[in-house]
Amino acid sequence: MSRMLVLTEAELRRIVGLDLSAVDCVEAAFAALATKPVAMPPILRLDIPEHRGEVDVKTAYVPGLDGFAIKVSPGFFDNPRLGLPSLNGLMILFSARTGLVEALLLDNGYLTDVRTAAAGAVAARHLARPDAAVAAIFGAGMQAGLQLQALALVRPIREARIWARDAQKANKAAAELSRKLGFAVTAIADPQAAVKGADIIVTTTPAERPILMADWIEPGQHITAMGSDSEHKNEIDPTVLARATYVADRLSQTRRLGELAHAIRAGSASADQAFAELGEVIAGQRPGRTRTDEITLADLTGTGVQDTAIANLAAARARTAGAGQTIDTKAEAGDTA
Amino acid sequence: MSRMLVLTEAELRRIVGLDLSAVDCVEAAFAALATKPVAMPPILRLDIPEHRGEVDVKTAYVPGLDGFAIKVSPGFFDNPRLGLPSLNGLMILFSARTGLVEALLLDNGYLTDVRTAAAGAVAARHLARPDAAVAAIFGAGMQAGLQLQALALVRPIREARIWARDAQKANKAAAELSRKLGFAVTAIADPQAAVKGADIIVTTTPAERPILMADWIEPGQHITAMGSDSEHKNEIDPTVLARATYVADRLSQTRRLGELAHAIRAGSASADQAFAELGEVIAGQRPGRTRTDEITLADLTGTGVQDTAIANLAAARARTAGAGQTIDTKAEAGDTA
Repeated sequence: MSRMLVLTEAELRRIVGLDLSAVDCVEAAFAALATKPVAMPPILRLDIPEHRGEVDVKTAYVPGLDGFAIKVSPGFFDNPRLGLPSLNGLMILFSARTGLVEALLLDNGYLTDVRTAAAGAVAARHLARPDAAVAAIFGAGMQAGLQLQALALVRPIREARIWARDAQKANKAAAELSRKLGFAVTAIADPQAAVKGADIIVTTTPAERPILMADWIEPGQHITAMGSDSEHKNEIDPTVLARATYVADRLSQTRRLGELAHAIRAGSASADQAFAELGEVIAGQRPGRTRTDEITLADLTGTGVQDTAIANLAAARARTAGAGQTIDTKAEAGDTA
Repeated sequence: MSRMLVLTEAELRRIVGLDLSAVDCVEAAFAALATKPVAMPPILRLDIPEHRGEVDVKTAYVPGLDGFAIKVSPGFFDNPRLGLPSLNGLMILFSARTGLVEALLLDNGYLTDVRTAAAGAVAARHLARPDAAVAAIFGAGMQAGLQLQALALVRPIREARIWARDAQKANKAAAELSRKLGFAVTAIADPQAAVKGADIIVTTTPAERPILMADWIEPGQHITAMGSDSEHKNEIDPTVLARATYVADRLSQTRRLGELAHAIRAGSASADQAFAELGEVIAGQRPGRTRTDEITLADLTGTGVQDTAIANLAAARARTAGAGQTIDTKAEAGDTA
């Protein structure tokens, strides 16, 4: 009898949290990108304009991990009118040895949220100063909070500032995060003031024009830009790249749709410049931060290896915890009712 | 509470057969390709050479159908050593209105077999002579039998010949199909003799050199080539295209990996020739067969619209029959055990 594990979002939330295990598994996946023959094909994209829908399918095979995930991420932007969330999605985990289906993770994007925040922690771990204590977060959405929580896993954060276009949302997020994380989180209305004296700045917005200006940046700061996952998004003043040590999650991808794409267009970077990738820094193949006063910039656009890593972690945790439902994939008609 | 339907191969075999409903649903999907704003992105392909594995992901949105399917087809060619089949796979059906998952079809490729054979029937219905009674099938595998069964749904077949490189397999297939289909099916060792006097010829082999020669073809014959689904496969003598009315399932695809690709390379067809597609013939936008003595050739390489069509049929049948298991996609941890 062949069995497939089915896990719902509620079950996944119980067994997979944003913790050091999640950070470590995403870090290992990035390292594999630099050191192993990872296979990560371009994203498959289906558009359904009739219902304002778009669907992305991502996958990656990471040697050493038992399974590969195929992630389907639908976004249907008329859903709120029907009382449904715009974003949904699931991952399917297949055995990398046999291609047989092993688990269906009905996460509605939760695992993507975790692996995205975990990548922020990985970037900070390798690029921010070890004593980084003050964080500035741009944006007040769910990922803003997760990024701050992720930073606190890897750096001794004792103060954070939230800036968002909508000051009310920033206030609300700051209050909630103060309570949740146990250190002072304050909303700051002036983005430049939020950046002043910060050790780490994380941008998490859907901005299409720069919201973080080059002349605000101080020596020694680390910046993670994680809001840019499509061609038209742009959070960072392109001239920052001329002053910073730039690290991509996947260079071929950030050249096309990251902050780097805008810097290339603006002439602050050249299209064939051989910037380091995060995995190369983790693997010690390229330097990360080399001086205390260095400015570092991580450009995170999201990669399939993160999905495969977190899906493997989720399935392993579920097996240990006995979580989820198992389905007999060979069930005869009539076996089940 | 949100519900997802899960159907196993055994259940799908019980509720979806190779019958006129399957043929009609695939026909409608081809017609939609010609008449509606179908979205059908290129195939996503993941290679795992370490385990001789390859994975194809196909999808298509067909306006008018409630759901779109994402089909994952893994082929792992070391599996037989582990006592497992090389080919597996599943389809996921999502609502085309909301992007929410509706059904998981654990078909192990069964629905692909049905929709592929159904396309053969659609081609014969629109291109073979109405009185076509004698079929010649090249190949003795599972799809050879299904193609013959499909022809008998749309044409008054009363005799069939099977040719295959392996004469023993041809004999075995002929005996089984005679029993199953209720008309005479005989194995013929000489492929030219198999073709002589046949009304319809279907090639279903993985040949990489032509097995059907141009000078064997007689006026009035219809040929369906369905073995070619990758660049190196080639069943039909390229010069046949100079004599036949050629119809593609998807022209952009057959130019790349169908019989047409080889004819273009051999100079029997030009790369920009505006051949008809099957959907255009079905929709009456382009002529199919116009004369009794015309030679017609359908080049079938497999399309995502067929997958979306058969997945919708399967889900509708399952709902009517109350088949399969339902999963609560919102289950809280602990709800299920």
